[in-house]
Amino acid sequence: MTTAIDLRGLVREIPDFPKPGILFRDLTPLMRDPDGWQEVIRQLGVLCDRLQPDLIVGIESRGFIVGTALATAVRLGFVPVRKPGKLPGAVTGVDYELEYGSDRLEIQSDALADGGRVLVVDDLLATGGTAAACAELITAAGGNLCGFGFVAELAALGGRRRLPEPHPVESLIIYG
Amino acid sequence: MTTAIDLRGLVREIPDFPKPGILFRDLTPLMRDPDGWQEVIRQLGVLCDRLQPDLIVGIESRGFIVGTALATAVRLGFVPVRKPGKLPGAVTGVDYELEYGSDRLEIQSDALADGGRVLVVDDLLATGGTAAACAELITAAGGNLCGFGFVAELAALGGRRRLPEPHPVESLIIYG
Repeated sequence: MTTAIDLRGLVREIPDFPKPGILFRDLTPLMRDPDGWQEVIRQLGVLCDRLQPDLIVGIESRGFIVGTALATAVRLGFVPVRKPGKLPGAVTGVDYELEYGSDRLEIQSDALADGGRVLVVDDLLATGGTAAACAELITAAGGNLCGFGFVAELAALGGRRRLPEPHPVESLIIYG
Repeated sequence: MTTAIDLRGLVREIPDFPKPGILFRDLTPLMRDPDGWQEVIRQLGVLCDRLQPDLIVGIESRGFIVGTALATAVRLGFVPVRKPGKLPGAVTGVDYELEYGSDRLEIQSDALADGGRVLVVDDLLATGGTAAACAELITAAGGNLCGFGFVAELAALGGRRRLPEPHPVESLIIYG
């Protein structure tokens, strides 16, 4: 996508984080840049125009940054998906495998009770494990998944192929 | 503050979370309610009009929800303050005491290098320990703290008195 604002130029590359051999794409300079960040939210707003979600779901914790900014801009409600034990009240959870070990995501059981259309947003699509687990969680909680939006995607990791068909997946910045 | 929207009515009380004897104020129904949430951000926007910050800082992870929503609405940049080891690149940290044990907050060392005015936002002001530590961190990183904004405050816990003078502290919902 061609824009007047170079979003990619506002992403900082940090070698060997969080461990040796990993080139980390640091989106914080983009979040700190008012014009760049407005453009991120504008582009994700276009995705909302297309997919017409009723709610935005963001995955803890960088997905909160993208998700609430978007939800506020498009005047929708926001629902957090969190690490285990963080959400009060009745929760629905899903366990999923990581490269080493496993993890768990939770959502409040009544959060999607209206059965509305849910857009999942996160900062980065990497292996797709977390986003795929979030999709499973949304279905388990009675929500109606309508698509995914990411600020950046590491395409070489194949995360897009792990996400459930036929839901659209949009990433604003794609690294090969 | 009198508003047409009853923000307090959108907060859910959950007894015995995260441990027995604690009455947890759950703000997620407010985040999920588009009109309620727009009103939260509108009121925090009025605080921004008054304090004229250059940047919004939000504390991981529920402070991300409030902070980025506000930053996006008022067209400012957002800077995350995170738990240790989460932020890439050079970081500045501060250790602080909790009721049991201690914790640490970090910020990227260059995030506030321009010396601008910083508004700290979080969902809840309770004992004030985390917000006071965040204030210390902002000063250590070269920022110019201009005030605090919270969605809710548990006034009986006296958190407001732990925050550094003379910075204004605004909470939209105050519980006695």
